[in-house]
Amino acid sequence: MAKSKRSARKPAARSVKGASRSSHSGGERSRRSAPILRGPKGKGRAAPDGPYAALREELRQIATLAAVLTNISWDQETQMPPRGASLRAQQRQMLSAMLHERRTSRRFGDLLKAAESWAKKNGDGRIKADLRETRRDFDLATRLPTSLVAELARCASLGMEAWKEARQKSEFTLFLPWLKRTIELSREKARCLGVARGGELYDPLLDEYEPGMTAAAVKATFDPLRARLVPLIERVADSSRRPDIAPARVHTPIELQKAFVRFVCEKIGFDFNAGRVDESTHPFCDGFGPGDTRMTNRYRSDGWADALGTVLHESGHGLYEQGLPKEEHFGSPLAEPISLGIHESQSRMWENLIGRSSAFWRWAGTHARKHFAPALDAFTDADIHRAMNIVAPSFIRVESDELTYNLHIMLRFDLERAMVRQDLSPEDLPGVWNERIKSDLGLDVPDDRRGCLQDVHWSMGAVGYFPTYTLGNLYSAQFWEAMGREMPGREEMIARGEFAPVLQWLRDRVHSVGREFRAEELCERISGAPLSSDALMRHLERKVSAVYG
Amino acid sequence: MAKSKRSARKPAARSVKGASRSSHSGGERSRRSAPILRGPKGKGRAAPDGPYAALREELRQIATLAAVLTNISWDQETQMPPRGASLRAQQRQMLSAMLHERRTSRRFGDLLKAAESWAKKNGDGRIKADLRETRRDFDLATRLPTSLVAELARCASLGMEAWKEARQKSEFTLFLPWLKRTIELSREKARCLGVARGGELYDPLLDEYEPGMTAAAVKATFDPLRARLVPLIERVADSSRRPDIAPARVHTPIELQKAFVRFVCEKIGFDFNAGRVDESTHPFCDGFGPGDTRMTNRYRSDGWADALGTVLHESGHGLYEQGLPKEEHFGSPLAEPISLGIHESQSRMWENLIGRSSAFWRWAGTHARKHFAPALDAFTDADIHRAMNIVAPSFIRVESDELTYNLHIMLRFDLERAMVRQDLSPEDLPGVWNERIKSDLGLDVPDDRRGCLQDVHWSMGAVGYFPTYTLGNLYSAQFWEAMGREMPGREEMIARGEFAPVLQWLRDRVHSVGREFRAEELCERISGAPLSSDALMRHLERKVSAVYG
Repeated sequence: MAKSKRSARKPAARSVKGASRSSHSGGERSRRSAPILRGPKGKGRAAPDGPYAALREELRQIATLAAVLTNISWDQETQMPPRGASLRAQQRQMLSAMLHERRTSRRFGDLLKAAESWAKKNGDGRIKADLRETRRDFDLATRLPTSLVAELARCASLGMEAWKEARQKSEFTLFLPWLKRTIELSREKARCLGVARGGELYDPLLDEYEPGMTAAAVKATFDPLRARLVPLIERVADSSRRPDIAPARVHTPIELQKAFVRFVCEKIGFDFNAGRVDESTHPFCDGFGPGDTRMTNRYRSDGWADALGTVLHESGHGLYEQGLPKEEHFGSPLAEPISLGIHESQSRMWENLIGRSSAFWRWAGTHARKHFAPALDAFTDADIHRAMNIVAPSFIRVESDELTYNLHIMLRFDLERAMVRQDLSPEDLPGVWNERIKSDLGLDVPDDRRGCLQDVHWSMGAVGYFPTYTLGNLYSAQFWEAMGREMPGREEMIARGEFAPVLQWLRDRVHSVGREFRAEELCERISGAPLSSDALMRHLERKVSAVYG
Repeated sequence: MAKSKRSARKPAARSVKGASRSSHSGGERSRRSAPILRGPKGKGRAAPDGPYAALREELRQIATLAAVLTNISWDQETQMPPRGASLRAQQRQMLSAMLHERRTSRRFGDLLKAAESWAKKNGDGRIKADLRETRRDFDLATRLPTSLVAELARCASLGMEAWKEARQKSEFTLFLPWLKRTIELSREKARCLGVARGGELYDPLLDEYEPGMTAAAVKATFDPLRARLVPLIERVADSSRRPDIAPARVHTPIELQKAFVRFVCEKIGFDFNAGRVDESTHPFCDGFGPGDTRMTNRYRSDGWADALGTVLHESGHGLYEQGLPKEEHFGSPLAEPISLGIHESQSRMWENLIGRSSAFWRWAGTHARKHFAPALDAFTDADIHRAMNIVAPSFIRVESDELTYNLHIMLRFDLERAMVRQDLSPEDLPGVWNERIKSDLGLDVPDDRRGCLQDVHWSMGAVGYFPTYTLGNLYSAQFWEAMGREMPGREEMIARGEFAPVLQWLRDRVHSVGREFRAEELCERISGAPLSSDALMRHLERKVSAVYG
């Protein structure tokens, strides 16, 4: 079954943070010309009054333009012909610079200040949270010069094309200059953003994806997890039970897989009038804006389970994006995801906690057998459930099981952090990678394609992103336990294919709050406890006992 | 066989012409941040010196942004989920306004003036043509206020969604308010652009798509064509020969059609590393910029010939876009199509003059039989060729034959012109449409879906566009005769599947010249004669004689 994908880029509105100070007159102009108009006569919603409303209108317009950047980045990965890469890099660079200037303009600063003054008297808790997050974004953005933001965008676009070729040919040297440049630019970005006392350069990079998180805090979370994971993985290796992979690997036409996957997506609540699923080499999900959330998937003819796992994962992201209150608050932090860790908690919940559960397969088994008839006729729900939960080390992160997956993340965290600290030179990455895979998983990496070239992240300049995957695993398990306490009949509902209550629970507690709370606070509010590895380990131990005895 | 499609929107850089005067500081900013950079270190092409070079750099950047607008419009038609329409309309409106401001900024005017002064001493013929066309675009653009350009973009985006629904339900009243608004806005646009002495409001609308053309000139071209077409259509109706449609209508799996169509596209020279073919309800072709040209097609299982005809048509557009010297001149008129009539001449040449010729089928027949085996085994090349050339009236423009197609265009030209003149009220369109179909083609229109709601053009605000289809037919026939004189072995080459010489001839004479010449001048240079219906009628008469005796 497919494991985590690269996944859920945050909306470009957030992923291109940072900024310089120059004022951007374009803002005013477009504000005048782009109200939401409903009918042919152009009569429509007037901007509401007040300084807070004026700020929100500016945010909405910036988000509208940012969604264009997200759209052409999505296009680059799903549609664009190879020779379009140079034009696309220029476009991404140009739009990134325009957005950055507008997000950091003097005008924006003035609007924000006026809204803050107004809110002192008039704002409720949500408004104050909205302004707190807007202030955070603005302050971070204004520390980055536009030239750096534009250069990061250019490298993200061209670096990805170089990485594609390097990966395809398994030739690390083709990607090496771009990796060096990415580390160099990341260090420059981190210096601009600023490091807190006692912190390190990696922190501000991580903070972009997981606000408030530091390298030291990640390490303090990962170390105990690792200490409990490794013996559990050994217990599996020593077990005499060997579940049969066969049900997951039956050959099925890709058209049938697409139909099944769409059926499941619809059943769990993804709205296809407001989204779509495409194919791409590297599955991901982009929330463009109100009414438009796009996921991608990939298919192989020698097994349908990967495509299902991937789509459940991406649907978790997609449902979060569709559940954010964008109709009302588009552009404002109140309609944005809290962090990538929280985003990932949603994808992991659908992929692992639901999608690999025996309750789920009591429902989905029948539908899988029907869709792929007669290929699965010989297998019971329990056979399929076991096949979905095989634990075995793999070279490839996105093909790993729920246990070893986290070792992949720890490896990436350690190596990218070492590169940012200049303890590891990019030249030496393949060697160090391969040694670590050997010592962590006992595998000999056959080529860089299945080694350090497997992931897209560094090619798009995403340094500091990887830890959020394991943070997401931890959050998801903690939320899942809380949901279980509040919803005792959950397993039976899932076994009947009733997913609406689960989705509603997530909508109420996670999706609808936007960035009103930070991740840590949300975690405490929902689960009553700070983030730890306890819930995830309880889940994994139960699972291993069920499958491996 | 499929006839003309809606087809080949001009690059957004040209299709959103018109403009106001305010200066746009965004230009400068992006110019600094968006040079073409090649390597990870960001070293790359520096902008060349001189006032002409500075203007060209500004044009290149505007085109880079305009290609983003083209991309999201393409996305709206091929990818976007229905609920994304509102966000998309705001994005198109915002980008259109930004582009318009930049195209009409004081800065742009200054750059243009400086380049013109410089060119008086230093410019050669091509440079002078480049500046002549840039001046034309700028002068027209500065006559349009940004608010009007933004409103046109908004209506184009939302009007299209309304039209889709109206067409699907065959309910004209759903589209009527948008049609009224489109006519109203078109009249306003025409008034801003200005009418020459003795001209009419329709002229500046037509001139956008076909520079230099007027309603009176179109009428003077169409009237004699009509006078010769109608008797020829009657001759066909009276003929006792009835070619068999069967070869074009054999059921073939859509996957096989896609493979065949791609095979043919590649053979005639379309570069798939720099382009793609997708599916859409309404086939079209968009040239985004260097290395990225996108066509769409549609497929039906009860016949493969429509998909082939469509793709040959769109390939004609696509080959023109790929043949324009965009690597060198992107953004400048030297890398832009002359007019939609000339664009259409390229699509008609591949669709009709080549794709419906007996020489073509001596080559393609074998390949079609192989791709669709055994469905076509019973048919000879000549059988297929005859099936591709059946003349019979149809409700649907894009499904018409080479003869009656032009009557569809004349109808649309007359009715849209009448609406712009306010001689025809949009409310009365369905009735007048149906009467005219009856009198021209002898058919009773069963519903508006197969009547006045069939075409996308008016929904996207394209008034003045239709005549270019028939102008394209005339140009194509005239170019085709000229090519035949210069390339006596042409038919034999085509029958061997050697298309490179034909493509090279078009590259040299049409594609590579960009907008150096106006359409009329190009026509005279290539064919030695002004545009007339003579060549097309000779072609059609020969064809009718061959097929109908």
